[in-house]
Amino acid sequence: MLRAIQNLGCSSSGWLLWKPRTSTSACKTPPFRRFRARSESNPDAASASSSASVAPQSSLYGNVRKISFCQWCGGPTKHEIPSGEEKMRAICTVCGKIAYQNPKMVVGCLIEHDDKVLLCKRKIQPSYGLWTLPAGYMEIGESAAEGAIRETWEEANAEVEGLSPFAQLDIPLIGQTYIIFLAKLKKPQFSPGPESSECQLFALNDIPFNSLAFSSMFVTLNLYIEDVKAGKPKFHYGTIKKRPGTSPSDIHAFTLDYHLQS
Amino acid sequence: MLRAIQNLGCSSSGWLLWKPRTSTSACKTPPFRRFRARSESNPDAASASSSASVAPQSSLYGNVRKISFCQWCGGPTKHEIPSGEEKMRAICTVCGKIAYQNPKMVVGCLIEHDDKVLLCKRKIQPSYGLWTLPAGYMEIGESAAEGAIRETWEEANAEVEGLSPFAQLDIPLIGQTYIIFLAKLKKPQFSPGPESSECQLFALNDIPFNSLAFSSMFVTLNLYIEDVKAGKPKFHYGTIKKRPGTSPSDIHAFTLDYHLQS
Repeated sequence: MLRAIQNLGCSSSGWLLWKPRTSTSACKTPPFRRFRARSESNPDAASASSSASVAPQSSLYGNVRKISFCQWCGGPTKHEIPSGEEKMRAICTVCGKIAYQNPKMVVGCLIEHDDKVLLCKRKIQPSYGLWTLPAGYMEIGESAAEGAIRETWEEANAEVEGLSPFAQLDIPLIGQTYIIFLAKLKKPQFSPGPESSECQLFALNDIPFNSLAFSSMFVTLNLYIEDVKAGKPKFHYGTIKKRPGTSPSDIHAFTLDYHLQS
Repeated sequence: MLRAIQNLGCSSSGWLLWKPRTSTSACKTPPFRRFRARSESNPDAASASSSASVAPQSSLYGNVRKISFCQWCGGPTKHEIPSGEEKMRAICTVCGKIAYQNPKMVVGCLIEHDDKVLLCKRKIQPSYGLWTLPAGYMEIGESAAEGAIRETWEEANAEVEGLSPFAQLDIPLIGQTYIIFLAKLKKPQFSPGPESSECQLFALNDIPFNSLAFSSMFVTLNLYIEDVKAGKPKFHYGTIKKRPGTSPSDIHAFTLDYHLQS
């Protein structure tokens, strides 16, 4: 029996309403239960004006800016479809190299401690003053888990262990994929890093849903609460379809599509 | 009870030996069973000479080439640690923009059909003539699942459906993360695309393990076979630590670290 999660829209309090729905399909239960909430056409990322969620790589946010020069030789680029390919690319007119732009992974931790979750209040743009899980861009040379551990240390001076994958959330409009791990504190110590003004443990009923920094955080925390209520942790995969033209901190301007959970 | 998977090295046939190991820790079973096979220092990706696994973005393989010019204004870059950061970055000496390099996601499908798996023989470098799951770089504007569907269509002219997350494998040395979905064929039709010379369904006992294109494929297929034998599909997360200086097709020159499975 397939178990589906349907997005019924926002309640007046701003919460996305989640309602389990069962189907009558007689089929072997797949490892992940599938549901496609609704299908929207993919807006052209290059025309999006919303900014991405994570500093300091803010120059590459939402607006996938056109590459004008070659990073390797400095020559001007032309924009064409290379032979044998199907998408427009920036091609150097001097050395011929193609400059590709690809989505970036944002890795972070949902720290569970004494039935509470650790959040950081951002001291930087975007979403200044709003709450987020500790997270940031994955770097070359590290794994996603190592990046999540590093970002948690940098943003919350918290040492974590016992990571397990919790969610992968793709955000096509801004070219980001969030990869969030559940984690435990090695020691019950944390404090704000340079990019945070505060760090605090929140009981699940006290999570500041109206002051979250990004839609990815809104989705992640809602999914987590749902799992806690069900008494069973899962792995979640989904696509956040952000409404073009909305800011990162407009955390309700999206739908969650293609949500799969183990 | 924690269930761990230990890499015991390669057998003479080239198979990695997997041996379940139980611990006596009395703790609540986490959603993912953890094991850290062994810890290696992360080689500086910039000094790696191995090439990455997927064409045509071969100019950014293994050797994380130094960015010499600004993509936005063409000015020469300097390499310094920006104020407030901790890593060396390429900073434009004219406009001041920072050029970040981040790992890329490679998305693909492990198609299950009649108890067989679809593989493609590569018609391009690297790993020309070797077998791979259909996979390629994720693009901005699509989700990981959409990218996996697209790559499967491009490389095998196969329409797939029923995707579910199977594995995430990080390869820090070459700045890649493989995200593989299980999938089903919509119709029992497939044929080689421009980058494949052949496509074939292989029974699990017939998978050409000595002719696989990349270590990621070796790991993915071994994990899949293990799951089939156990009769229970899982989601796997792990880090492939490639030995520096080895080629993409040297599929045994690695260890699988930090393997977690649901």
